[in-house]
Amino acid sequence: MTTPSLIPEPTQDLYQRATLVRRSANALSQASDKQRKSALIAIAKTLELRSGEIVRANCEDLNNASKEGIGEALMARLKLDEVKLASAIEGVRQVASLCDPLGIRQLHRELDHELTLERVTVPLGVIGVIFEARPDVVIQIASLAIRSGNGAILKGGSEARLTNKVLMATLHEALETSEVNANALSLLTTRQESLALLRLDGLVDLIIPRGSNELVRFIKDNTRIPVLGHADGICHLYIDSAADLTQASRIAIDSKTQYPAACNAIETLLIHEDIAQDFLVQAIPEFESYGVTLLGDLKSQELGVKGSAQDHDWSTEYLDLMLSVKIVHSIDEALEHIRYYGSRHTEGIVTTNKETAEKFLSSVDSSGVYHNCSTRFADGFRYGFGAEIGISTQTLPPRGPVGLEGLITYRYRIRGNGHIANDYSSGKRTFLHKDLPL
Amino acid sequence: MTTPSLIPEPTQDLYQRATLVRRSANALSQASDKQRKSALIAIAKTLELRSGEIVRANCEDLNNASKEGIGEALMARLKLDEVKLASAIEGVRQVASLCDPLGIRQLHRELDHELTLERVTVPLGVIGVIFEARPDVVIQIASLAIRSGNGAILKGGSEARLTNKVLMATLHEALETSEVNANALSLLTTRQESLALLRLDGLVDLIIPRGSNELVRFIKDNTRIPVLGHADGICHLYIDSAADLTQASRIAIDSKTQYPAACNAIETLLIHEDIAQDFLVQAIPEFESYGVTLLGDLKSQELGVKGSAQDHDWSTEYLDLMLSVKIVHSIDEALEHIRYYGSRHTEGIVTTNKETAEKFLSSVDSSGVYHNCSTRFADGFRYGFGAEIGISTQTLPPRGPVGLEGLITYRYRIRGNGHIANDYSSGKRTFLHKDLPL
Repeated sequence: MTTPSLIPEPTQDLYQRATLVRRSANALSQASDKQRKSALIAIAKTLELRSGEIVRANCEDLNNASKEGIGEALMARLKLDEVKLASAIEGVRQVASLCDPLGIRQLHRELDHELTLERVTVPLGVIGVIFEARPDVVIQIASLAIRSGNGAILKGGSEARLTNKVLMATLHEALETSEVNANALSLLTTRQESLALLRLDGLVDLIIPRGSNELVRFIKDNTRIPVLGHADGICHLYIDSAADLTQASRIAIDSKTQYPAACNAIETLLIHEDIAQDFLVQAIPEFESYGVTLLGDLKSQELGVKGSAQDHDWSTEYLDLMLSVKIVHSIDEALEHIRYYGSRHTEGIVTTNKETAEKFLSSVDSSGVYHNCSTRFADGFRYGFGAEIGISTQTLPPRGPVGLEGLITYRYRIRGNGHIANDYSSGKRTFLHKDLPL
Repeated sequence: MTTPSLIPEPTQDLYQRATLVRRSANALSQASDKQRKSALIAIAKTLELRSGEIVRANCEDLNNASKEGIGEALMARLKLDEVKLASAIEGVRQVASLCDPLGIRQLHRELDHELTLERVTVPLGVIGVIFEARPDVVIQIASLAIRSGNGAILKGGSEARLTNKVLMATLHEALETSEVNANALSLLTTRQESLALLRLDGLVDLIIPRGSNELVRFIKDNTRIPVLGHADGICHLYIDSAADLTQASRIAIDSKTQYPAACNAIETLLIHEDIAQDFLVQAIPEFESYGVTLLGDLKSQELGVKGSAQDHDWSTEYLDLMLSVKIVHSIDEALEHIRYYGSRHTEGIVTTNKETAEKFLSSVDSSGVYHNCSTRFADGFRYGFGAEIGISTQTLPPRGPVGLEGLITYRYRIRGNGHIANDYSSGKRTFLHKDLPL
């Protein structure tokens, strides 16, 4: 918990802008599927028209960042060239083609004669997105928000300032030609504003932080608004005694190296003692060839792992080509280790024993539990959601990779004919509670 | 936001107890539908056996409270006599009879040949419930938690200390005879512990505060754990120009007086100017006969409302026999008022004009929007959910009255055969994303 002084009160200007986004979002919530789709098509076209300008602004941001000596990884994320922009625009068209998530009746019930309850999907309202570096997030979030009928307040990293500004101007220009009010999207530019955003409960319904663990934790500690995000991704792969060794090392290599900075990459390998020697003989050179540093417990060091794992390694998210290794006596020890050190993100087992696999799948309390495949499949696109607004490690839904459904909620409607509650409390009338076709 | 010093670090003892609840909850999550049902039946039977003891403990709590001069309303909530206990026990049997919310497959998709994704409902894990006065909440929450495979840590008000202690001992005694580990339920007894509970993220997955607005707000401001609850319930009823006057006053009276302390009781009546005189002539004496004090704007005072509403009245939750009254020019003015002052809980319209009704039902952004019926229907039992863990005014689901579904989440499982993500990134393989039967 942080002291209150860190979070400033919203200025009158921010309050007014957020109110305008809310009002525009309210109008947007009434827009038809076709109107929201057309707005996205307009956005895609205008982004194409303005692509030269966008890429030039991004070059300027990159130049400035390079002068400030920003690291390579950050520079790569900051970069928005023709290729990445084209792919982001293609993403807008894909989001346009997703099924309408709104107006779906989830419940339909006759409470009594002429008293009918229904539950229908509606937009959340206004989302606040705080992200670092990657300017293509502006395009992605804007299209997801509008597709689902929501307003969005975005705050990007200062290093992408010029790119974000041109992108937002382009989005506004596109929306002016559509039936969606351009004020449904707003860009914040100062750090003070992004902090004050955390206090806009009542105007903002969900905060989505996309950035470092520290950012996510800071936000969770400093707002009353629900937060969708993941702090840690300490994922495990357990190599069972009945594992197919070729599959095991293939899956372990992919889970660690396919994109080490991702939250769904593994940080710890748990190996059953009966297979540890055979597995490590084969896997150690493979890991070395991929540049992975292994840090092992005493037993795995005896079997050839060169580095030594300390206590803190079991709870460290390396986000790098490093992997801690532990030998376990049984699946139960593996489950216990995961329960203690895991962050309930994604864990996998490699085994040919179906019974052991099912035990693992039903016991591990993570948002993703996998058998004989890479943990890197924990991703909205790979799950077939079409688009992803983030991954949540909170247990309460939406959990795991979240698509459009993270941006919608529902509303209960009752249509009556003069019905009052007292008639039911007094026993004069009783509820029917008869489900009707959806 | 409150300064960190208010919330103590969990003691070693609390940490160990919460860890024990979590472990027991993990075992409970593997229990079958039948085992969880049987545990509830055992609870119902043991509560019946121990009912004399429970009622005696409650008498002692009532005596102590009376000596301390506790108010009548609180005494009524604290009381657990034979009748209320029997009804709570009946509630346990009802929860036992609810359909199993676990193990339901919500998604089933072939990602690729021999690579299959499914999404299955599972328990949340451990819930923390902080409640005031009413000891029957212990019984209700315990039965909902166990039915849905969750552990629960409960903290009741100090005024119900003896009753809660006997109730928890009874629940433990019952679970000892069942296949559910009794340690899945734990009772906290000190205020320090209930504060420290807010810091048990990682061990507790959801906090449910049941009490005053201040309690809910304090908790939301001081925890990183998701909170299910409602702070304000500022509900509105709009009487349209096309209202049936008899229905209108009947619904208004019920919405205000059927249980004024409830969050779904109305606090403000909005009346269309064209019908205001006719409505108020009839309604004012009726409100008076129910002891309701009306506080009106200038126009409604001209039409006979005696009290005068000040600015702060439009955002006040009276929870009492008081009602603010405002005359509006149009439905749009009513919608604007609700948007500005409402707490997105429940709002109603009375009108015979279907078009106006549909406009209201689709525009108002509250968890419940009703046409021609009382706002008092906003309740899990009345919706037919069988049991209610609370009402949420947060926009993100679960929203509105929440039944068992508030205590469950889902998990993604993938079963593969050596599949790695790099094959898809490199274009060697492509996803099928073919939905399979659930």
